[in-house]
Amino acid sequence: MTEHALIGRFDERDWETNPEGTVRFALIGLGWWTVDVVVPALERTDYCEATVLVSSSREKAARLADRHDADRGITYEEYHDGVGSEAYDAVYVGTPNAYHLEYVETAADLGKAVLCEKPLEASVERAERLVEAAEAGGVPLMTAYRMHTEPAVRRAKELLDDGFVGEPVHAYGNNTQPVLEMIPDPDQWRLDPDVTGYGTSVMDLGIYPINTARFLLDRDPVAVRARMASTHGAFADVPDQYASMTLTLEGGLPLLCTTSQHAQQDSQLTIVGTEGAIELHPAFHGEAKLRLASGSLRVTVDDVDFDEVAEMREEFDYFADRVLSGDPILPDGRHGLADMRTIAAVHASAERDERIEL
Amino acid sequence: MTEHALIGRFDERDWETNPEGTVRFALIGLGWWTVDVVVPALERTDYCEATVLVSSSREKAARLADRHDADRGITYEEYHDGVGSEAYDAVYVGTPNAYHLEYVETAADLGKAVLCEKPLEASVERAERLVEAAEAGGVPLMTAYRMHTEPAVRRAKELLDDGFVGEPVHAYGNNTQPVLEMIPDPDQWRLDPDVTGYGTSVMDLGIYPINTARFLLDRDPVAVRARMASTHGAFADVPDQYASMTLTLEGGLPLLCTTSQHAQQDSQLTIVGTEGAIELHPAFHGEAKLRLASGSLRVTVDDVDFDEVAEMREEFDYFADRVLSGDPILPDGRHGLADMRTIAAVHASAERDERIEL
Repeated sequence: MTEHALIGRFDERDWETNPEGTVRFALIGLGWWTVDVVVPALERTDYCEATVLVSSSREKAARLADRHDADRGITYEEYHDGVGSEAYDAVYVGTPNAYHLEYVETAADLGKAVLCEKPLEASVERAERLVEAAEAGGVPLMTAYRMHTEPAVRRAKELLDDGFVGEPVHAYGNNTQPVLEMIPDPDQWRLDPDVTGYGTSVMDLGIYPINTARFLLDRDPVAVRARMASTHGAFADVPDQYASMTLTLEGGLPLLCTTSQHAQQDSQLTIVGTEGAIELHPAFHGEAKLRLASGSLRVTVDDVDFDEVAEMREEFDYFADRVLSGDPILPDGRHGLADMRTIAAVHASAERDERIEL
Repeated sequence: MTEHALIGRFDERDWETNPEGTVRFALIGLGWWTVDVVVPALERTDYCEATVLVSSSREKAARLADRHDADRGITYEEYHDGVGSEAYDAVYVGTPNAYHLEYVETAADLGKAVLCEKPLEASVERAERLVEAAEAGGVPLMTAYRMHTEPAVRRAKELLDDGFVGEPVHAYGNNTQPVLEMIPDPDQWRLDPDVTGYGTSVMDLGIYPINTARFLLDRDPVAVRARMASTHGAFADVPDQYASMTLTLEGGLPLLCTTSQHAQQDSQLTIVGTEGAIELHPAFHGEAKLRLASGSLRVTVDDVDFDEVAEMREEFDYFADRVLSGDPILPDGRHGLADMRTIAAVHASAERDERIEL
């Protein structure tokens, strides 16, 4: 890793195969993330186009389709019936967790490639069914981990693979946000265990350091120990208003994580090794600043123009590149399923106050 | 906490009582910390003077005394015999951990105030004897926690006390350094359990986040769970080449810590709350940068002229201020003893793979 790599080609798409063609998308679930982030991102992609918008409300879907030059807006029922399926090649599933399965099952039946938001589903069992549906239908399935194509994360991975930190010693990740300030509704789906699944903070936020550390270090968790608490009334139905955990990664490497949906926004992922340290700080909220240390050297790399829209543009183009080229997808369904098993173990550990082996 | 407080009076000595007089010190143990950091710091203090230097080598003590305008250099034996005791009012104990007790016992017999390096001793039992010796002799005893008078730490504490972060949600601390690169000797005392005590990384480095979090949050640990490993040959006799731990502070607040003597230098202490976050990063190696976040506001305060010498100047002047005024010392012997009990529990937890209540 040279200065050239950090400055001259910091945001190089080292994954790109320059395929021919365009992937046409149906966007399923028109919440704020899809509307405010995904749609603008798609307008800036090289290989993607939104052609069909899918919502519970035909009026909302049609209105947004009209505004964004998509072909049409349809309802969830129409999607399941295959309405307009000739107009798209792939689906983006951006609904609440517990509804992913049904949309992926239909996509598999229709032979459409799937980019599915994380966590894959509300439970391990449902995520397994989701992955198996895609496999049975022979359709590509990617779990939407946007950190895998974040330039700062990719450069961090190159540095780690090149031995920049020497032997990793430990990792720490944090991801917090004040969800009730962002969405001032105590009945929002992220706080409803029937829709979110095991809980809220680990499923929605903790998954970032868990998955990104796993990606950067090429090591899976082998054991977890966690503690959780919920004290605020809005969190009465979920166990993890706050959560802290220690994951043991392959080779005995400790990954400590903290997460909360009821805290100041903050995110960090740090890997300290015998020879250096790599830090993403902030890491997971659309602003990934890379900080490097080796001996007495300190380097900070901050792409101030890169944001969540840019992150989603990279993610969609990566997915489209793989769909068009037929090359393997790295964060595929099995990759996302592994994180579901880890999250389930984190919750089981906190509930039983036991170390859980994976 | 206003901008004025962060900028205009960032390094204000809010603890200072402006006493009359000077405290004359005997410096016991002339290792690199005493010679390269403490002696230069004392030359810049308002209330302190080094008058006697004490070492195993009379020649070394005399040579350094001569170079730094101290009255005289004496041996440890002469110190125990009270030689030159009319020339100092207080002692600074900067020897390896397991030798603190004997020097404090003699100071107590001689009626001298004591500023003793942390950790207080090599074991809880010896630290208890040390504290009891000072109490029996009626001499003031301060545990040398230089973070208590670090301006960045004091301002962080004011902010926390003022409710800047709201309700604290979690804390994370890291402290790592490559001790074999700093002191290229596998037989150094920090790796010898007869001299260091329970181990090396937690005793020497982990004590910083443990104590500083406790100071900042006004909460003591009530339980600990830890894991440790040693893999490098030089660490064969100590269990904690690497250590990670979760302390539960009063009120259930989790404090996660990582530490290692065989890693890239890195230090951090972060407290995330419902309304804001406070971070010292770097925190513990003579360069404390304060980072504040509240909502969308981000503030970084970095006093680039402040270093380890400046930190020790503040610590010595605080101690002298309290000795001259007779006011209570905050990080006293009992305060340091509590950390010894925590460190012992951290080691017991790792050894038994159990959560240990304090």
